[in-house]
Amino acid sequence: MGPGPSDVSPRVLSALARPTIGHLDPQFQALMEEIKAALQRLFNAPDHACVPLPAPGTAGMEAAIMNLLEPGDRCVVAINGAFGGRMADMAGRAGATVVTVDHDWGLPVDVARVEAALSGAPTKVLAFVHAETSTGARSDAASLCAVARKHGALSVVDCVTSLGGIVVDVAAWDADVVYSGTQKCLSAPPGLSPIALSKRAQAAISGRKEKVRNWLLDFNLLMSYWGGEGGRTYHHTAPINALYGLHEALVAIFEEGQQAAIVRHARTHEALVAGIEAAGLSMLVAEKDRLPQLNTVRVPDGVDEAAVRTHVLKHWDLEIGAGLGPLKGQVWRIGLMGASATAWHVRLCLTALCEALNAQGFKADAQAALAAADGKLG
Amino acid sequence: MGPGPSDVSPRVLSALARPTIGHLDPQFQALMEEIKAALQRLFNAPDHACVPLPAPGTAGMEAAIMNLLEPGDRCVVAINGAFGGRMADMAGRAGATVVTVDHDWGLPVDVARVEAALSGAPTKVLAFVHAETSTGARSDAASLCAVARKHGALSVVDCVTSLGGIVVDVAAWDADVVYSGTQKCLSAPPGLSPIALSKRAQAAISGRKEKVRNWLLDFNLLMSYWGGEGGRTYHHTAPINALYGLHEALVAIFEEGQQAAIVRHARTHEALVAGIEAAGLSMLVAEKDRLPQLNTVRVPDGVDEAAVRTHVLKHWDLEIGAGLGPLKGQVWRIGLMGASATAWHVRLCLTALCEALNAQGFKADAQAALAAADGKLG
Repeated sequence: MGPGPSDVSPRVLSALARPTIGHLDPQFQALMEEIKAALQRLFNAPDHACVPLPAPGTAGMEAAIMNLLEPGDRCVVAINGAFGGRMADMAGRAGATVVTVDHDWGLPVDVARVEAALSGAPTKVLAFVHAETSTGARSDAASLCAVARKHGALSVVDCVTSLGGIVVDVAAWDADVVYSGTQKCLSAPPGLSPIALSKRAQAAISGRKEKVRNWLLDFNLLMSYWGGEGGRTYHHTAPINALYGLHEALVAIFEEGQQAAIVRHARTHEALVAGIEAAGLSMLVAEKDRLPQLNTVRVPDGVDEAAVRTHVLKHWDLEIGAGLGPLKGQVWRIGLMGASATAWHVRLCLTALCEALNAQGFKADAQAALAAADGKLG
Repeated sequence: MGPGPSDVSPRVLSALARPTIGHLDPQFQALMEEIKAALQRLFNAPDHACVPLPAPGTAGMEAAIMNLLEPGDRCVVAINGAFGGRMADMAGRAGATVVTVDHDWGLPVDVARVEAALSGAPTKVLAFVHAETSTGARSDAASLCAVARKHGALSVVDCVTSLGGIVVDVAAWDADVVYSGTQKCLSAPPGLSPIALSKRAQAAISGRKEKVRNWLLDFNLLMSYWGGEGGRTYHHTAPINALYGLHEALVAIFEEGQQAAIVRHARTHEALVAGIEAAGLSMLVAEKDRLPQLNTVRVPDGVDEAAVRTHVLKHWDLEIGAGLGPLKGQVWRIGLMGASATAWHVRLCLTALCEALNAQGFKADAQAALAAADGKLG
């Protein structure tokens, strides 16, 4: 129950162990087509090219930035946590002129400040994180994509932690490049990064003056491998077994229903928050901006935050995440992602956390916490 | 039995399906340490930093090129097949001045011509492929690394197809950056790229003037994640389940013995070649330069090479690789890699191939082919 990877269900684990076939085998190519279609549905991006990149979520970020930006392009990056900062670093490596809009950690991205930065000069790309895993804050992707379009910029939206847990609606946002990871709310193992590219983004990439500074993630090459129009051009050897796992995870999501999964995430989050507050703790992020799948809980004064994490790992085999950057030592990060977003997980976590807090001398009433959570679980 | 992925054994498939734990969990960190040590042993690189990169073998190539080269550096690339060409493309994307030494496909790299290119001007990197998967030719890595050192260049050696199938001896070669994939002679699923870096290479990377044009594969960042000296710095989410599979594959290799596996590859190769020749076919590569794990067989005049591949896939569920680039339509590529390098595979392949050839009107005597192979299998 850290910031990821989330629990992977037995059916997905079992799919990983299917025999490895050739990546150019017609049967495997049929699986590739199914995955592409399922990702279009999951992102709600029927007009985007959707493929899973053969590396963890960071590869989605790197692919978006490196494919869109050329030396001298202006890029505005909203930074409200660790992952916005990473985008800015990558944009510099792409040779872009990077303008950052910096926020205190825990806040959502400020649309007005981003628009002011976009107004400063012609801008190729606006990049931001929809669901900041380092803080638990949700930003307004629809409004941010709209200001990008208004100022003629392509939008890059990091949905690593949001996809599958809250609404991700690429078509409604009219977003350009949106990527995610498999190890958060999709509950597949880490190692792949689903990505969606608009026609505008594809045109920008195929019209580049310089080659992309990344061969493995160059969409001009990748699309002739995943393109599906007749004979595929060999590019890399796809991670066959990881793709079996992703396929099964996607089947499971559509069996439950995307909307049902989002409701489940919201409900377990409300229960966890009720329990956290009943235990005498408080949340970092304002209620309206909270991510249900990533809960940042303030460490009370006088409590050794690392000792609490060690306690729950040792006695309950339960992982809770530490704070990153300026939040180091200040918060715990509790994930409720995918197969980990259940009433059982909420009750286990509250029980373990209260025990660990009491061991530290902080009085946390586990019975009250569980009762408050149960009140929301219904 | 194509150019990869090779068959994955049930024990490795089963390891893939172990429960996904957190990538910062102490148990997982212990597994990381075991993998690092096993890779040092496998590469025979006790003084190199050895880690598995979180993407297929192409990521090893990209990491080597992008980390070592800065804009303006001179790079000599030997091209004797598809993968040398890919290295040259990447070196250009790194901003290097690229000098290629081009060979006809099917030939090993010519050490004298490479040395002449190195003599032309101060050179930062010599890059070449040890075992060209597109042609089946083996090059002399020891001599090529020696001429690189003589001329003050760092050596980058592509061992994607060689590692585990023929001798890879990084310490004896005194090679700088050596990488491989998991889906060839290691018989784990595709998706990871083991890489070894010498102290010279590490110093060159930490002393760069510009940032690496790749965040995910930047060794300055990667080494503080995989470094192992106390607290790890979060970088990316490791592909946990894929690493379970690699770990099990490494255990299996050491159980058999590295030398025993190399002898097994050599013996099955000799049997396959004997059978191929008894069937009236011939090999592309000269005997002294052949890779046991990748056998390029000339397509006889009048035979439809694609129809043969389709036949063996349809009737025998057996994959044989097509020729790439200038060898398209000219050769078949038959892999004998890792768990696919067995007498059973040799006999199956000869039987299927002879049947397909006869269906095409080319008289291939399957009995003679099997007898010739059996003579080598003993």
